[in-house]
Amino acid sequence: MAIFDTVLIIGGGLIGSSIARAARATEAASTILMADKSPSVCDAITRLSLADDVSTNAADLALRADLVILCVPPGQMASVAEAVVPSMRTGAVLSDVGSVKGRTIKAIERYLHGGVTFIPAHPIAGTEYSGPEAGFATLFKDKWCILTPNDPDSETATQVAKFWETLGSNIAFMSPERHDIVLATTSHVPHLIAYTLVGTAVDMEAVTQNEVVKFSAGGFRDFTRIAASDPVMWRDVFLENRDSVLEVVDRFIEDLSALKRAIRWDDGDALLDHFTKTRDIRTKIVDAGQDSAAPDFGRQES
Amino acid sequence: MAIFDTVLIIGGGLIGSSIARAARATEAASTILMADKSPSVCDAITRLSLADDVSTNAADLALRADLVILCVPPGQMASVAEAVVPSMRTGAVLSDVGSVKGRTIKAIERYLHGGVTFIPAHPIAGTEYSGPEAGFATLFKDKWCILTPNDPDSETATQVAKFWETLGSNIAFMSPERHDIVLATTSHVPHLIAYTLVGTAVDMEAVTQNEVVKFSAGGFRDFTRIAASDPVMWRDVFLENRDSVLEVVDRFIEDLSALKRAIRWDDGDALLDHFTKTRDIRTKIVDAGQDSAAPDFGRQES
Repeated sequence: MAIFDTVLIIGGGLIGSSIARAARATEAASTILMADKSPSVCDAITRLSLADDVSTNAADLALRADLVILCVPPGQMASVAEAVVPSMRTGAVLSDVGSVKGRTIKAIERYLHGGVTFIPAHPIAGTEYSGPEAGFATLFKDKWCILTPNDPDSETATQVAKFWETLGSNIAFMSPERHDIVLATTSHVPHLIAYTLVGTAVDMEAVTQNEVVKFSAGGFRDFTRIAASDPVMWRDVFLENRDSVLEVVDRFIEDLSALKRAIRWDDGDALLDHFTKTRDIRTKIVDAGQDSAAPDFGRQES
Repeated sequence: MAIFDTVLIIGGGLIGSSIARAARATEAASTILMADKSPSVCDAITRLSLADDVSTNAADLALRADLVILCVPPGQMASVAEAVVPSMRTGAVLSDVGSVKGRTIKAIERYLHGGVTFIPAHPIAGTEYSGPEAGFATLFKDKWCILTPNDPDSETATQVAKFWETLGSNIAFMSPERHDIVLATTSHVPHLIAYTLVGTAVDMEAVTQNEVVKFSAGGFRDFTRIAASDPVMWRDVFLENRDSVLEVVDRFIEDLSALKRAIRWDDGDALLDHFTKTRDIRTKIVDAGQDSAAPDFGRQES
C-alpha cells in the first residue's frame, strides 16, 4: 500500500533517482513525478522510465504532489523551496535529503506557508558516483535515515518515517544540531580529509602521478574513492555545516600534531596505545552490520 | 620450476604466511621452511601445513636456506638479521618485505658477511587482518613488488624478481630513498591519517560511540578499515620512515589549513576547484587496475 499517493522528487541525481527506483519497486508511492532543472537529466529520467511525469519546471508538478522531496545540493535547497512551496497544496508534506540540517532547515522555513509541513530527512547512503544512471533501488536498504522534525510524534513525521522504512531504511530521530555534529564526525570531515590528502599526493613534486597511481594499493586508493564524490554537493556541505566541520577538523589537527610529536620524539608506546584503541571500533562497525568483514572489502580473492 | 630450492620465511604473519601459501601453490620453491619466535604461531603454521619444517629458532633453519625472507615488523628486521645471517651459507640470498627501506637497509647491512647478498623487497599488498590464519595464496597476484637492490641488473636481483613474478606480482625497481617518499605518500601517511581520525571521532564528547558506529556509512567506516591494521607494524613504519612521513604530513596539514580557510571565508570556488581536481586521479587508479570500479567497493547490490 502506498504511503504517499503522489510523490514529487526534485533533482534526478544519485539520491533522487534511487528514491524513484526504490519507491517504484516497493510501491511506497502510487505516482512518481520528477523534476530537474537540467533538460539532459530530464531526458535521462524519461529514457530510464524512472517517473510517471517529468519536467524542468518543479512548481508545475508540485501542484499535484502529496510529498515533495528536495534532492538537490545543500546550497540550492532554499531557492528550490522558494520556487515550489507556493504551488504546494494545503496538507502536502515537504521533505529533503540534505546532508546538513541546521542552516538548511532555517533557510527553507522562511518559505513555508501554513498548509505545508516540513519534515527534514537525511538518508545515510550513497556511492562515489553521481547522476541519474548511478542510482539503484536498493541504495537505502538497511541504511539509516535520520529525521529531524520539530515534533517526532506528529502524524506527518510518522508518515515520512514509514515512507523511508518502506524503501528499506532504519529510522533515527535527532535534533538538527546533534545531526550536524554527528555527521561532521562520521561523514563530512572524513570527506574533507580524503579530498585534502588526494590533493596533497597529486601535488608532491618528489612523487610522480604515475607512482601515486601504481602504488595506491597501500592505502591511498580508499581515499581516492571518497574523494571522487560529487564536488558541488560537498562544497555545499562544508559551507552549510561550517561550524561543526571546523570544530571537528580542529580536533583532528590537534590529534595529528600529537602523533607527529610522538613520531619525531621516537615515542613508540604513545603510537602503539593509539593504534590499538582504534582497532576496537572497526569490530563494532562490522558487528553492527554497517560494513563488510571481508578482508580489504572483498577486493581480494582469499 | 622452483626459482629457489629452499626458502626460509621468518615471521608467520599475514605476509609471511601468504608467501608460504603462494610459493607452495606456484612451486616457486621446492622446500619451504618457516620460523617464528612465537610458539603459538609455529603451532598455527604446523596446523595449517604451511611449511615443510617449522621452528622458533630461525638460525637453525637458516643453515639450509638458499633464500631467507625477513617478514617481521620493521623495528625487528635488524635484530633478526643479526641472529640469522651468521648461519647463512655462502651464496645464499637475504631479502625482506619491509614497508620502509632506507633505515632498515642500513641497519641490516651492518650484519651482512661476504657470502650473502641482500636484495631488499616490498610487496605492496595486505589486508586489515593479521596473523598466519589471515594469509592467502593470491595476496600478491597483480600487485606491485618494489625491489631496491644496489645493483638491479645483478643475477641475484633478477632471481628475486623472478620469485615475486612467480607469486603473481609486477616488479618495480627503485632507490631506497625514492621508495620511502613514494610509500610515505601512497601508504604511510594515509594510514597515519586514518588512525588519527578514528581516534578523534572516538574522543569527541559531543558524539557517542554508538552514533559513530551507527552512522559510519557516510565515509568514516572506510577509515576504520585502514585503522584496523597491525598496530606494531605501523608503529615501526612511522618511526623507521619518520623523515618522509613528517614531510608529507606537514604538506597535508598546510593543504588542510588552506581548505579550512576557504570554508571559513565562504570561498566556494576554491573548494570546488580542489574537489574537481581530485576526481581525476580516481579514474586513473581504476583504469590502471589498482582498484575496483564497483560503486562503494561493491558493498551495495546495484
